[in-house]
Amino acid sequence: MRLDAVKRLLVGAPMPLSQARHERLGKAVALAVFASDRLSWVAYATEEILLVLILAGSAALSYSLPIALGIALLLAIVVVSYRQTVHAYPQGGGTYLVAKDNLGRSPALTAAAALLIDYVLTVSVSVAAGIDALTSAVPVLHPFRVVLCVATIVVIALANLRGVRESGRLFAAPTYFFVVCILGMVGYGIIGAFFGWLPEAHYEPHPPGLEGIGLFLLLRAYSAGCTALTGVEAVSNGVQALKPPEGRNAQAVLTWLGVVSIAMFLGITYLAFDFGIVPGGSETVVSKIARRVFGTSPPYYAIQASTMLILVLAANTSYADFPRLSSILSRDRFMPRQFGSQGDRLVFSNGILILSGFAIALLVIFGGDTHALLPLYAIGVFISFTLSQGGMVRRWLRLREQGWRWRMFVNGIGAVVTGVVLLTLTVTKFKEGAWIVVVVVPLLVLVFATMHRHYEEVADELSLEGLAGPPEFQHTVLVLIGDVHRGVVRAVQYARTLAAPTAAVRAVYVEADPARTLKLEERWARWGLGVPLVVLTSPYRSILRPVLEYIDQIQSRGDDQMVTIVLPEFLPRKWWQHALHNQTALLIKGALLFRKNIVVADVPYLLKR
Amino acid sequence: MRLDAVKRLLVGAPMPLSQARHERLGKAVALAVFASDRLSWVAYATEEILLVLILAGSAALSYSLPIALGIALLLAIVVVSYRQTVHAYPQGGGTYLVAKDNLGRSPALTAAAALLIDYVLTVSVSVAAGIDALTSAVPVLHPFRVVLCVATIVVIALANLRGVRESGRLFAAPTYFFVVCILGMVGYGIIGAFFGWLPEAHYEPHPPGLEGIGLFLLLRAYSAGCTALTGVEAVSNGVQALKPPEGRNAQAVLTWLGVVSIAMFLGITYLAFDFGIVPGGSETVVSKIARRVFGTSPPYYAIQASTMLILVLAANTSYADFPRLSSILSRDRFMPRQFGSQGDRLVFSNGILILSGFAIALLVIFGGDTHALLPLYAIGVFISFTLSQGGMVRRWLRLREQGWRWRMFVNGIGAVVTGVVLLTLTVTKFKEGAWIVVVVVPLLVLVFATMHRHYEEVADELSLEGLAGPPEFQHTVLVLIGDVHRGVVRAVQYARTLAAPTAAVRAVYVEADPARTLKLEERWARWGLGVPLVVLTSPYRSILRPVLEYIDQIQSRGDDQMVTIVLPEFLPRKWWQHALHNQTALLIKGALLFRKNIVVADVPYLLKR
Repeated sequence: MRLDAVKRLLVGAPMPLSQARHERLGKAVALAVFASDRLSWVAYATEEILLVLILAGSAALSYSLPIALGIALLLAIVVVSYRQTVHAYPQGGGTYLVAKDNLGRSPALTAAAALLIDYVLTVSVSVAAGIDALTSAVPVLHPFRVVLCVATIVVIALANLRGVRESGRLFAAPTYFFVVCILGMVGYGIIGAFFGWLPEAHYEPHPPGLEGIGLFLLLRAYSAGCTALTGVEAVSNGVQALKPPEGRNAQAVLTWLGVVSIAMFLGITYLAFDFGIVPGGSETVVSKIARRVFGTSPPYYAIQASTMLILVLAANTSYADFPRLSSILSRDRFMPRQFGSQGDRLVFSNGILILSGFAIALLVIFGGDTHALLPLYAIGVFISFTLSQGGMVRRWLRLREQGWRWRMFVNGIGAVVTGVVLLTLTVTKFKEGAWIVVVVVPLLVLVFATMHRHYEEVADELSLEGLAGPPEFQHTVLVLIGDVHRGVVRAVQYARTLAAPTAAVRAVYVEADPARTLKLEERWARWGLGVPLVVLTSPYRSILRPVLEYIDQIQSRGDDQMVTIVLPEFLPRKWWQHALHNQTALLIKGALLFRKNIVVADVPYLLKR
Repeated sequence: MRLDAVKRLLVGAPMPLSQARHERLGKAVALAVFASDRLSWVAYATEEILLVLILAGSAALSYSLPIALGIALLLAIVVVSYRQTVHAYPQGGGTYLVAKDNLGRSPALTAAAALLIDYVLTVSVSVAAGIDALTSAVPVLHPFRVVLCVATIVVIALANLRGVRESGRLFAAPTYFFVVCILGMVGYGIIGAFFGWLPEAHYEPHPPGLEGIGLFLLLRAYSAGCTALTGVEAVSNGVQALKPPEGRNAQAVLTWLGVVSIAMFLGITYLAFDFGIVPGGSETVVSKIARRVFGTSPPYYAIQASTMLILVLAANTSYADFPRLSSILSRDRFMPRQFGSQGDRLVFSNGILILSGFAIALLVIFGGDTHALLPLYAIGVFISFTLSQGGMVRRWLRLREQGWRWRMFVNGIGAVVTGVVLLTLTVTKFKEGAWIVVVVVPLLVLVFATMHRHYEEVADELSLEGLAGPPEFQHTVLVLIGDVHRGVVRAVQYARTLAAPTAAVRAVYVEADPARTLKLEERWARWGLGVPLVVLTSPYRSILRPVLEYIDQIQSRGDDQMVTIVLPEFLPRKWWQHALHNQTALLIKGALLFRKNIVVADVPYLLKR
């Protein structure tokens, strides 16, 4: 009961089902929920590109501009392509659904596996990056990174266990704050640099190049920047959570997000180039730009704070998507049933808990340094893009609605472009971790398929079709006793007065010491209530073995032999007293658990002291 | 079943009770079993004395001789005193029994607590010291000390789980080997030093004194050397394990042990003095003496090996005593029942496991450096000595057998002397850890007394005296269903055909979705086997809450309302499939566990695939 009170305090009172519709999101709040994931990568993608280019020396950094333009173009293509998806699937156009609808089971499960992995990675990577922004500004916190990351995830998980709209509201302000901060910095930075208002720049050592500039390096830089595209999927997957008309609203959200994020991304990349920012060290690129524009002043701290918040909150997108996708998979019997049931706050609690568990595990294993996870992350995103757009192409071909040729062309471009990027990513990042995705995704698909087959088989087996009538049983009720006392008398009486006249009731005693048996039989004559006593000898002092042998003997009479074991148990008043009683009963229950045609019934005896 | 095979491999086949007598020990084997504890400290006590004296500089080391003589005298007094104890208590003269018999419950429990703590400490300290001897000779093993210690304890525990005689045989050879080695070293060392046969001595730096020589320092050195007295108790406590006539045999063992260990201890102390051995560093004093006598030659390694073996095997004495004492305490209802039952190899398996667990924990916590535990250890030993000899004095006074005056005088001297040493130890070692014993022993006594009271109260409560007749019940059998399928039909049929005509059988369904309820009710009409269906609504989607409320409602009718909950469960074929089923059943069982007048019965349905 006390546990329940803690739960109420943390996640709030239960909500009736009738409240479900009100929990949908308005456009402005939805924007905030989905935007955090979509926008947060702006803070990040430039740095990833620069970190690859710097391998060829600081001169190569200028290639960041054309690469950023290429990524912006890709982003525009994906956004346009996804606009069609969310319009066509107003009930929720997640890749899994689109692929299932148009491409069949295996592609759908592949997309689902890639997405589930990505949702976990989003949480780990975003939270770690958010804490990076914090420790860039406040270096003394650096040693506590992992603890800060884990604490952050716990807070996000609790917010989500409270329910979707409340968490949306919680996250709206920081998202808009981030957009204002970054666009402000970009604007002021460009104008200030032009008019020479900015503070004096410090000299930064430019490391020598380790590699030459070649096509492979540029492709790797481009691949690295592709992390900027994540989050588009979030909107299409979460259409269901928007207010009606869901499709149109989702389109608007998507367009707005595309435009704003492209502007922010290009602006940051331009400033990094203009200021000659060198990536690396313990400071992020955005932090370096902000320091260059504002010095270490209040606006600088505002930039860092908003970056931290948006990144930390980006993790929240996964908390909308992971539970939703797993509940869909659970409904389709590809994941355990438990993921399909909403908790008493109308959220899919099990999904939230599993997601948090995995994300925390990754953070702890990687010690809060999640750079290594980024390639895995990007590949998952592009698997999903390609399958989703490919599915849309199939859809237009199949339905041939008005304007289908043009629509198919748009989605076709999207599918081909993202497919090419996916290949590039896999090849250029294979050694850096892409191989893990290549291994884990098929494994997950296999797990889904295996669970599905099991559930289907069980459903077949349990079907009442062809069942002629109920099974007939021969009941034997055995009361296991170790002594004769009030608890035993109670259990024997329970068995006697419950069991039908057709059931044989017997007491079973395992003999440890023949002298004791005689005394026990005497008392049984008085208190056995007419139930016959079976004494089993035990040459090896095991209580369990003779009982099991006796049960086997009864059940060997036929398949219809149902044995009910009645165990007298004590209910002590205090928790520590449990350790002093019922140990034998526990042992017997353990041995009989999950055995055919055996039912174990504990008859409790409440101890008063 | 496979687990059982592993157990057989490790501890051997079960033994019938009739074999118990044959498991008793002959004198020679008993000597080995008890001697290891008694003798091992010889290797150690000199070093402890020197480590205190060196604080006053190397000049103070010569005080080791008079101190050692004083300790030898104390040891002689204790041995003579204990000879009377083992003779008077041939059925096992452990301090607990002697104190219980003569001094009453509290002194007996105090002795028991001190002894149990000491048995654990013996294992940790002996094993750590044994591994010290090993790493003195083979320094490369030093980093693996803790692992080696833990592995050693595991091996000893397994040997003991096999049974007492086999472990006795296992330990006989090393014990005699140790005696031969040490006496050989002492003899050869004294003679060799006299004739100048020994190898050239290396210069050892003599540290300057940090303290002056005073009475307190000498008392501390004496206290430190008192660890040499441990192990006498082992014989008196283990008389039961000897072949008859137990009393005489135990006396003989005790005398032999006293003489041999005094000789060895004095010899080692003399050589340490003669060679000017300075204690400290990563090498033990015995290792230094052995190197001085034999150089780093095969005889040196023999000394080290035998020292290591004897120390490691000393731990084994506790494996005879701890389980035996805890079984006695369990029989007297001061410890949980589980410690009182012999396993299928005729040993008290629970005691062995608990002892090993605590000893390993201490070793891990102290990182294999158990010097800090020695003061605790010695205090426990002397608590036990004082209480045992004091008890014997009371006994002679009470019984006034032939020659009681002389006997009382002998035990009286023993009691007074050990009592004075106990006080000295407590005062001189208070800060070094003696205070822990002063705290823990009373706490343990309190725990024993509390358990005892609980067991007594329960026995009173369960007594059949004054019970007029068996309780009368009103039975209600509720079958909880979530669907209608073969498993449910089976469970309903079970309830129908088991329950007596007087019991009300009902099926209970918690409604999540009214539309589903309608379908379910249709199928119930066909497959409900005439059992009435109760549909409970659940506004908060909790399955548990409505069921609990319904049960409360039934039970509110009176104290005689017995509710049997029948849960249909699946028995999947493979372990991982369990996670896919029965989650709700598990939840309900958890909530109903240990509730008054509720019996839970799982009816298993065996899944074929």
